[in-house]
Amino acid sequence: MSQSQFINAREDIVVEAIEGLVRISGGRLARLDGFPDIKVVVRSDWDRSRVALVSGGGSGHEPAHAGFVGRGMLTAAVCGEVFASPSVDAVLAGILAVTGEAGCLLIVKNYTGDRLNFGLAAERARVLGKRVSLVVVDDDIALPELPQARGLAGTLFVHKIAGALAEQGADLASVTEAAQRVIAGTVSIGMSLDTCRVPGSEKEERIPAGKAELGLGLHGEPGVEQVEHVHARGAIEAMLARLLPHVQAGPQILLLNNLGGTSALEMAVLAHEITRSELGHRVSHLVGPAALMTSLDMRGFSLSLLPACAADLQALARPVDVMAWPGVSAVVPGRTVPMPEGLQLPVPTPSENGAVRAVIDQVCDALVRATSDLNALDAKSGDGDTGSTLGGAARRIAADIDRLPLDDLPALLGSIGMTLSQVMGGSSGVLLAIFFAAAGDAARQGAGLQKSLQAGLARLQQIGGARLGDRTMVDALAPALAVLGSGVDVAAVAARQGAAATAAMSRARSGRASYVSADRLVGHVDPGAEAVARVFEALVPRSFGL
Amino acid sequence: MSQSQFINAREDIVVEAIEGLVRISGGRLARLDGFPDIKVVVRSDWDRSRVALVSGGGSGHEPAHAGFVGRGMLTAAVCGEVFASPSVDAVLAGILAVTGEAGCLLIVKNYTGDRLNFGLAAERARVLGKRVSLVVVDDDIALPELPQARGLAGTLFVHKIAGALAEQGADLASVTEAAQRVIAGTVSIGMSLDTCRVPGSEKEERIPAGKAELGLGLHGEPGVEQVEHVHARGAIEAMLARLLPHVQAGPQILLLNNLGGTSALEMAVLAHEITRSELGHRVSHLVGPAALMTSLDMRGFSLSLLPACAADLQALARPVDVMAWPGVSAVVPGRTVPMPEGLQLPVPTPSENGAVRAVIDQVCDALVRATSDLNALDAKSGDGDTGSTLGGAARRIAADIDRLPLDDLPALLGSIGMTLSQVMGGSSGVLLAIFFAAAGDAARQGAGLQKSLQAGLARLQQIGGARLGDRTMVDALAPALAVLGSGVDVAAVAARQGAAATAAMSRARSGRASYVSADRLVGHVDPGAEAVARVFEALVPRSFGL
Repeated sequence: MSQSQFINAREDIVVEAIEGLVRISGGRLARLDGFPDIKVVVRSDWDRSRVALVSGGGSGHEPAHAGFVGRGMLTAAVCGEVFASPSVDAVLAGILAVTGEAGCLLIVKNYTGDRLNFGLAAERARVLGKRVSLVVVDDDIALPELPQARGLAGTLFVHKIAGALAEQGADLASVTEAAQRVIAGTVSIGMSLDTCRVPGSEKEERIPAGKAELGLGLHGEPGVEQVEHVHARGAIEAMLARLLPHVQAGPQILLLNNLGGTSALEMAVLAHEITRSELGHRVSHLVGPAALMTSLDMRGFSLSLLPACAADLQALARPVDVMAWPGVSAVVPGRTVPMPEGLQLPVPTPSENGAVRAVIDQVCDALVRATSDLNALDAKSGDGDTGSTLGGAARRIAADIDRLPLDDLPALLGSIGMTLSQVMGGSSGVLLAIFFAAAGDAARQGAGLQKSLQAGLARLQQIGGARLGDRTMVDALAPALAVLGSGVDVAAVAARQGAAATAAMSRARSGRASYVSADRLVGHVDPGAEAVARVFEALVPRSFGL
Repeated sequence: MSQSQFINAREDIVVEAIEGLVRISGGRLARLDGFPDIKVVVRSDWDRSRVALVSGGGSGHEPAHAGFVGRGMLTAAVCGEVFASPSVDAVLAGILAVTGEAGCLLIVKNYTGDRLNFGLAAERARVLGKRVSLVVVDDDIALPELPQARGLAGTLFVHKIAGALAEQGADLASVTEAAQRVIAGTVSIGMSLDTCRVPGSEKEERIPAGKAELGLGLHGEPGVEQVEHVHARGAIEAMLARLLPHVQAGPQILLLNNLGGTSALEMAVLAHEITRSELGHRVSHLVGPAALMTSLDMRGFSLSLLPACAADLQALARPVDVMAWPGVSAVVPGRTVPMPEGLQLPVPTPSENGAVRAVIDQVCDALVRATSDLNALDAKSGDGDTGSTLGGAARRIAADIDRLPLDDLPALLGSIGMTLSQVMGGSSGVLLAIFFAAAGDAARQGAGLQKSLQAGLARLQQIGGARLGDRTMVDALAPALAVLGSGVDVAAVAARQGAAATAAMSRARSGRASYVSADRLVGHVDPGAEAVARVFEALVPRSFGL
């Protein structure tokens, strides 16, 4: 398995990622001019008139934190190297860059380095006369023994709710109090099936197949325990067993966070499992599923719960101008819409037309007789069943001929098409069905037989993609239909010439034969084109009578 | 490496993912009542008054396509099983469920199964009187030999631009024409460092370390070639070398798509690489980086380019009510903000105060003398350097005493803190710096010495997390400060009692000793608490004089 990543030099990753983020922000973001030591992303529209929100920490958790900088969320994000706290100077620079009279709230995840460095920077900012408060997010419940619970994706609740209040002009005390309240109410737990790839390090193969790690932090450190992993339902049950004792009464807002490497399909399955879990009826709203607080490319996810109250929901729902916030949605019973009418194939009203019956009989007879020849041709480039497939379809149509609307050309063409799509299967059945259905549609709109069949051919080519010269049935069908107005005998000659020409086509550019090498193809007529020629030749002694 | 995924039974994945998506949509989405065979997601607010947009295909590309259903983009998404086209009946059900008088545009990625099944469904819908047009997205340029270029993430340009027009009431011909024009202008290419995990299948280990696959489709099929992979810059260069010959003149809109398993950090590095690449100055706008059209959890990405014109940019920028659309941003020169003032530590104005000088001298002297005792205590639970660290800091402060503002308590406390943070390093240096800085801040606001030091302790505890009984310096410092008002002799007794009590604390709950087992701790005083006791005891013979 490749250890490769899409990075350049390890020491440049965070600087380059920030430069990229700022450049593609449409001017909404700026960075402090302190690279490479000071890595701070700020709102470029910030006027210091309200309480500033500063967060950050080690990188590797993208979009956290820089991806949440913008109107309605963070004012600045202070970024450390991957999984390493930013320096005191970097945090202080972030605080000083954005803090005005209204003051500043620092939102810190509970890791020692972040606490210390943000804490000291706060003191230094206070010495400089800034009003700074600091909250520590400790939403992880995986280590109940540990008094210092880690900060996980529940941090996003704090960013968004405090951000909404600050944007609306709340004062520092109110914003801080709200942040503290959200922190007190939030509980989280994470699970992963694989470790993450730390840039420049060997990937740790710690989790065996069939196991999951439960209760992990954000930095690739081992989870609290390895549990059996069988399926998504079991994963959710195991997490809820740990979470539920810590969950407050009443409806909850769930944040479903992708730790980075879980497919969106799996995240949707997990969302479904939660809605039908023991907790399901209590989850009134959902944030995600989305990658919000990642551990690089970890194949895992985390659940964070916050008691649902009107004020917090309103704050979560307020519009933001940040790249990464996915919004909040109400969880509702799955809505269904009744299936539409018209899915049953219409049963045509049978009608009689002797001339048409004779044509169909002759065509079917010709295809049945051609079975072994067509199979032999197909064996040169395919699996040798073209004859059997077409012969089988012809037998079915001949047997059902009394049920066909023989005296109603549009309906007849459509009926043949639908029968072919049901009987033949595979690409060729669908393409012939499209050919006949489109021809019937054209006939219904007044086109004659030649024009109708040509309309069918056009649609067949649009959908099938085959062009003249691609060594398909089109090479016989197109020239035959082009001259059909001059009589079926002329058309038969054209079909035969077209079919013969396919033997010289060294490269199939469409259909299954496109995978076969030239030397196996040259000298053999394409079986589809041969079938078309046989059909027209079978009709030569008589006219269509149309 | 674990093959596990967060799924239940393989055959239920898509059904469960759709149920999850619909339930968490806040009522914006519904599904057709045709599970499990018919898997169609529709807008629940749809009134058939405008042109309907129907797309879809195999699943495994989430958020495509169901994640793009909503106002301003798709009207319905028809979902097949993972990497398998939906049935004709499913597509027809989708068409019939949403198509009114204004008609319907089918947006199909160029894979045989999708073309055939959407194509036949279109014919059947036309037979039922529906106006249906169909476009085939073929943006992949990796296989120039292949007349049937594959559909990749460029499909999103079609969804969004056609979606904006349809939402605004454009007629079917106009919407179809715009879709055709966008398809004609869009070119894409993909690259991956690893294959994806197809549910229920063994993961294919096809790409060796140090290699990347270039020119891949969306279904895990091998890329056109394996190329050397060194770094992000080389990856972008290799892709642009293939793309640029196909790119039209003038500015371009870039869609940067995560194929599913690439970390957000890497995607930001890639975004940066593009802005500084040969193509960089021509990329005027960007969609992403985001997971838009994935291959399950593939560690790769794709680039799609569309010539930038005002009409398309306007359409891309129009608001939508879909979960997964990330918006479009202008690419701008990276904005920087000057570094703020105040990062340099203030140099205090020295001043003299004989009593204070004596106190500092005594404290420093006591700590220097305690060096080996404290080291010995620390060796029981740590790396035996507490004495050296504190003694070294004390020597430094004593040596610099003439530069201190001895007659200005707030400034003095702050200066001592800053010196400690620079001299001591590590967590303890930061925590002591916070203690003194916060104490200085309180003194500046008028608190007396006791209250100031207690304010420092409170901040130290907030940031450090240590509580009474956690076997830290707090166990001596807190009781000493509590009684400092009664005299330093009383405080010294309290400090000594507090320090002595730490010897009975079997579990350190904070700091490095928290990793040490109880039996190694019991019977030994915590070295930090011992240091505090020594400091107060050194001051007993005299008063603070304050």
